[in-house]
Amino acid sequence: MSESNTRIAIYPGTFDPITNGHLDIIMRAAPLFDRVIVTLALNSDKDPLFSVEERMEMMRRTVKDFPHVEAAKFSGLAVDFAHREKANVIIRGLRAVSDFEFEFQMALMNRKQRPEIDTVYLMPDERYTYLSSSIVKEVARHGGNAEAFVPPFVLDLMREKYGK
Amino acid sequence: MSESNTRIAIYPGTFDPITNGHLDIIMRAAPLFDRVIVTLALNSDKDPLFSVEERMEMMRRTVKDFPHVEAAKFSGLAVDFAHREKANVIIRGLRAVSDFEFEFQMALMNRKQRPEIDTVYLMPDERYTYLSSSIVKEVARHGGNAEAFVPPFVLDLMREKYGK
Amino acid sequence: MSESNTRIAIYPGTFDPITNGHLDIIMRAAPLFDRVIVTLALNSDKDPLFSVEERMEMMRRTVKDFPHVEAAKFSGLAVDFAHREKANVIIRGLRAVSDFEFEFQMALMNRKQRPEIDTVYLMPDERYTYLSSSIVKEVARHGGNAEAFVPPFVLDLMREKYGK
Amino acid sequence: MSESNTRIAIYPGTFDPITNGHLDIIMRAAPLFDRVIVTLALNSDKDPLFSVEERMEMMRRTVKDFPHVEAAKFSGLAVDFAHREKANVIIRGLRAVSDFEFEFQMALMNRKQRPEIDTVYLMPDERYTYLSSSIVKEVARHGGNAEAFVPPFVLDLMREKYGK
Amino acid sequence: MSESNTRIAIYPGTFDPITNGHLDIIMRAAPLFDRVIVTLALNSDKDPLFSVEERMEMMRRTVKDFPHVEAAKFSGLAVDFAHREKANVIIRGLRAVSDFEFEFQMALMNRKQRPEIDTVYLMPDERYTYLSSSIVKEVARHGGNAEAFVPPFVLDLMREKYGK
Amino acid sequence: MSESNTRIAIYPGTFDPITNGHLDIIMRAAPLFDRVIVTLALNSDKDPLFSVEERMEMMRRTVKDFPHVEAAKFSGLAVDFAHREKANVIIRGLRAVSDFEFEFQMALMNRKQRPEIDTVYLMPDERYTYLSSSIVKEVARHGGNAEAFVPPFVLDLMREKYGK
Repeated sequence: MSESNTRIAIYPGTFDPITNGHLDIIMRAAPLFDRVIVTLALNSDKDPLFSVEERMEMMRRTVKDFPHVEAAKFSGLAVDFAHREKANVIIRGLRAVSDFEFEFQMALMNRKQRPEIDTVYLMPDERYTYLSSSIVKEVARHGGNAEAFVPPFVLDLMREKYGK
Repeated sequence: MSESNTRIAIYPGTFDPITNGHLDIIMRAAPLFDRVIVTLALNSDKDPLFSVEERMEMMRRTVKDFPHVEAAKFSGLAVDFAHREKANVIIRGLRAVSDFEFEFQMALMNRKQRPEIDTVYLMPDERYTYLSSSIVKEVARHGGNAEAFVPPFVLDLMREKYGK
Repeated sequence: MSESNTRIAIYPGTFDPITNGHLDIIMRAAPLFDRVIVTLALNSDKDPLFSVEERMEMMRRTVKDFPHVEAAKFSGLAVDFAHREKANVIIRGLRAVSDFEFEFQMALMNRKQRPEIDTVYLMPDERYTYLSSSIVKEVARHGGNAEAFVPPFVLDLMREKYGK
Repeated sequence: MSESNTRIAIYPGTFDPITNGHLDIIMRAAPLFDRVIVTLALNSDKDPLFSVEERMEMMRRTVKDFPHVEAAKFSGLAVDFAHREKANVIIRGLRAVSDFEFEFQMALMNRKQRPEIDTVYLMPDERYTYLSSSIVKEVARHGGNAEAFVPPFVLDLMREKYGK
Repeated sequence: MSESNTRIAIYPGTFDPITNGHLDIIMRAAPLFDRVIVTLALNSDKDPLFSVEERMEMMRRTVKDFPHVEAAKFSGLAVDFAHREKANVIIRGLRAVSDFEFEFQMALMNRKQRPEIDTVYLMPDERYTYLSSSIVKEVARHGGNAEAFVPPFVLDLMREKYGK
Repeated sequence: MSESNTRIAIYPGTFDPITNGHLDIIMRAAPLFDRVIVTLALNSDKDPLFSVEERMEMMRRTVKDFPHVEAAKFSGLAVDFAHREKANVIIRGLRAVSDFEFEFQMALMNRKQRPEIDTVYLMPDERYTYLSSSIVKEVARHGGNAEAFVPPFVLDLMREKYGK
């Protein structure tokens, strides 16, 4: 690829809520691409804590200081969203062994769909190696301290939700 | 990073010999960076089958059709080589679970050395998920067929080495 | 066991739907046994996409060209079904690490039930290492291309289900 | 810590039902601490087979011959329960790879909450390496033999539940 | 395969020494095949404790009561030995996660060599899940008790070697 | 165990060199036992960087501020050393998946030797999850910065060794 080409990446997830682990990946991805689209996967079957609009708002606040990073949402397959946005890369954070297996499965399936779009894995800071949105919610729900794991405004929103 | 910035990646390894798995990673990395340096780590303690010069020659032949990819060698730490080459990325192919653990270890250590250089993982084609230079040599050494796993000229060189 | 003995294997699963990964295991198992019974586990708690009758029909079509392979269904424990069918082997496809742990658990539990029936693991082609019925449905549901992963008639049935 | 100090551990779980694997861990933990509290986590979202009272009763019967071990229940975070009980340790049984990942995640989160309480892992006898409450219920539900996996009175209670 | 066909399996290894884990796999494999060849891989680079002749003798004593099981040795690739013996199966015992990765690698490489020969995995008794020849030697070397892990005559031979 | 009983633990390793990961485990173990013996395993086949005396000195300096922790060395099996010291526990740090498999193997073998001595696992701080003596030496050997991974006096000793 010549230097004049534009490299665009999407970073899909459910972001329920966005955590410092996600933010860490975004910080690592930002300098590697000309444009990074942090994008909410709408088609998850799971029952989220935060509404689509709440999650979009959190994503927007999280990325607002990164000039080439934006928030979006999509339904359907991530590769199809990537294609529509002319992205050549899907970014995934890689945390632990169980992740790895699922990531391989997804990446291979995505390649069958659109071979021109590849998956790139980034490793979060070791502080976030074992962090997930689920465990953050579990802690917050029981009045525990999730301060080290999410941006301050997410912490406030979780406290509101759980009335703590 | 603005579009005018140059993104440079190194892809370090022992390449003893270079395999189709390595080639697959190079093909995936090439469009993501302005310059990719496939680079031979000289400081391995292992006793290689091919000399440094033989391996450099294989690497050069493998990358010669990729306009922005070149072959090099280094001793010392990969991050220090990356720094000298003004690279911002270390590329690693990610194959299987055991890899994954070691890769985490290396990536975290590299980050402590130079936080501005990050590691990016690419996943090879599923045909190469379980491929390694060691197993290729094991097969070739016993007169097996390694045709599907290395470029043709590497196959010839291995046959010469093993007299088969 | 003398050569006059008959070796019978069951291959249990939920087959929702049957995939090329399952077919690959059946092809590998067929020459190893005198009779292979591909058998639908009815007691799963999961809410399947395809009805029992639809899945049985898919299984029958998939095995119809293998002279010693047949389709069946059972409720209860797989070892008890194996016992009733005078089978000495339970076949399992082995895909990835997470599989492996669960398979060990199942195999040990089955042995406690009927020590004379053992579990035999076969490895699918590397193209199917990371394939599962779930991911195939995920792709089909969003209008993606699942052609490489299921027999053609399964593809048609999935398209009908999802109206795509 | 001087010899006069008291070492207290909690062993939290859902115990639905308590198995010989749990009992094995309790036997290993008992001599290591001055007091061990086997404690039922009430906040699980899962739909249990046994009621809280039934599980508490099973736990009490299981620990009654261990002089320094008692049964309890808690809601909220395990670390907060530990704190209230002046415990310095959370005991966890370590079975297999998937466990391991989740355990790391939990342990790190617990440390952020209360750094003075640490997690200690014990390994069950190899007979219980792949044992879980879920697989025991699966077997019992289908009339299989779970005798080797749970205390006799738990076996009776499961048979009542499943009418077998 | 019709019932008149003969099913032959090889079980390759370094057997330095043969352990109860190997014996357990042999007992499981014996009823599944018309002939099982337990076969010593000569080409290992490792420096063995027991000579080829000593290991062959141990293997012969171990299999002597199994009518269809014999001991052999080979150099070169296991698939080529299987081919010469008209075997259709390579048997492998499957112990733990690290094994699994290596086994996949070997199985895929073997398939490329001779697609008509497949690898079949058997799981040892849980008592042997974590047993290996290396750890048995480590224990014996330091005067520990390896009685539960090897046949009695192997125990004697190890004691002689280590002078204990 | 009544409160008057003494709980003694050994923490065996090769400590070549001792790292902050080891120190972290020692800090966690100290309050759990009345006496902790950090002990050098002399029988490793590996060629160490530091002599036995150098390693003992590093261990002594590392533990000198912990009143109930001391340094020792042993040859033979760790369980036999534990028995001689009247210890009831072997402490192990648990880092990552590959560790885990080996640890299980060791723990089961140790139990066969002396069932009254059990293994207790502690998890290091997440900063040390992927730290090992080997990778620390690799970095130091190439003039990298190992400051975050070892006590200052170990850093000095490594620099001397490598002349950097």
